[in-house]
Amino acid sequence: MLTLYYAPGTCALATHLALEYAGAPYDAVRLNFKEQQQRSPEYLRVNPKGRVPALVTPQGVLTETPALLQFIAQSHPEAKLAPLDDAFLLAKMNEFNSYLCSTVHVAHAHGARGYRWSDDAEAIESMKKKVTQNMGDCFELVETRMFQGPWVLGERFSTSDLYLYTLTRWLEGDKVDGQRFARVADHFRRMNEQPQVQKVLAAQRA
Amino acid sequence: MLTLYYAPGTCALATHLALEYAGAPYDAVRLNFKEQQQRSPEYLRVNPKGRVPALVTPQGVLTETPALLQFIAQSHPEAKLAPLDDAFLLAKMNEFNSYLCSTVHVAHAHGARGYRWSDDAEAIESMKKKVTQNMGDCFELVETRMFQGPWVLGERFSTSDLYLYTLTRWLEGDKVDGQRFARVADHFRRMNEQPQVQKVLAAQRA
Ligand SMILES: N[C@@H](CCC(=O)N[C@@H](CS)C(=O)NCC(=O)O)C(=O)O
Ligand SMILES: N[C@@H](CCC(=O)N[C@@H](CS)C(=O)NCC(=O)O)C(=O)O
Repeated sequence: MLTLYYAPGTCALATHLALEYAGAPYDAVRLNFKEQQQRSPEYLRVNPKGRVPALVTPQGVLTETPALLQFIAQSHPEAKLAPLDDAFLLAKMNEFNSYLCSTVHVAHAHGARGYRWSDDAEAIESMKKKVTQNMGDCFELVETRMFQGPWVLGERFSTSDLYLYTLTRWLEGDKVDGQRFARVADHFRRMNEQPQVQKVLAAQRA
Repeated sequence: MLTLYYAPGTCALATHLALEYAGAPYDAVRLNFKEQQQRSPEYLRVNPKGRVPALVTPQGVLTETPALLQFIAQSHPEAKLAPLDDAFLLAKMNEFNSYLCSTVHVAHAHGARGYRWSDDAEAIESMKKKVTQNMGDCFELVETRMFQGPWVLGERFSTSDLYLYTLTRWLEGDKVDGQRFARVADHFRRMNEQPQVQKVLAAQRA
């Protein structure tokens, strides 16, 4: 059995979706960020980073979205969530996921978590101001240089679609007009219609 | 043939080392960051992100250190740079690499590249001030919670050792006393002695 720790509205949605698409048996445990449960001693024993997602597996705990996405795909090959038979295409999946993790997610995090990188209130305010531009620039690059269509990697659906969908959901809050990016916007609409997406979103809301 | 684009002192060292350890035939092309060659129209055609590393392969260009590291390991299985036979341990490698990429590297980048996240000169100064603390906190976590010993993953040497070595080289410039972290410091000394490391460092200096 697998246990996923998540909080609604976070990047943990990508991993939650991967578990659902994989058909894996799993429990999902919600943390309440308003009550800072991610910093509780109990949770820090699961994930000393104090972040979500974390996945408890029979072999130990795993964190970091790109690592989790490939792990879930590899342990459920029948779900075809990654091009496991093609090292180059698998690297393209991981390249895309790593870009979302290290650049796009980080650009977004400067909106609500600027205190990670400065102790100065004005500096934190000034980071907030640049989020719209940075997220727009990132999605411009995704739209024009990375997204192959109909899925991120082209004909093959993969974990990159789950991860892109997860971060596309942040655009509205970051005041980026998602309609600027026609292919990403169309991808978002198609993802919204998928029953697995609706099921996981409902579970996270419940 | 593979062509690696790098600049000295950057995270591209990890990928450069991986190619060397893999015994892969490759060319290494140095970009001059002082002359902003990473933003030249020619280079942006290779990597529209304007960053290193980028690896030109017969199948296309790959970027993002964690993706490159696994790709090189997978395409040269005889070099045993990744636990390819163990999905969980491979996920631990990718988890570690993703942490370095999305958190440790990003903490460091706030020293010289704060302009990415704010347009305000004082805010950029204030980000610089927090780099020592953040890099220290990251390495504390690596030392106490992640590093298994004798290598990052335990008995098995992997790309995570190349990547950790690369970022450990940044500690001095970030004014972090690496000797605080005994196991990481010992790892650094052992890595420094490896002939592949010496060869690649000499090539980057030449
Ligand atoms: N690199 C990690 C980042 C995880 C992360 O930053 N998660 C955020 C939610 S999107 C979090 O848990 N934040 C809680 C906090 O900062 O206190 C990943 O991609 O999994
Ligand atoms: N997430 C990328 C980051 C690449 C990156 O930021 N590279 C830096 C050097 S360490 C760079 O090329 N910077 C040039 C610039 O910002 O102009 C990776 O891990 O490969």
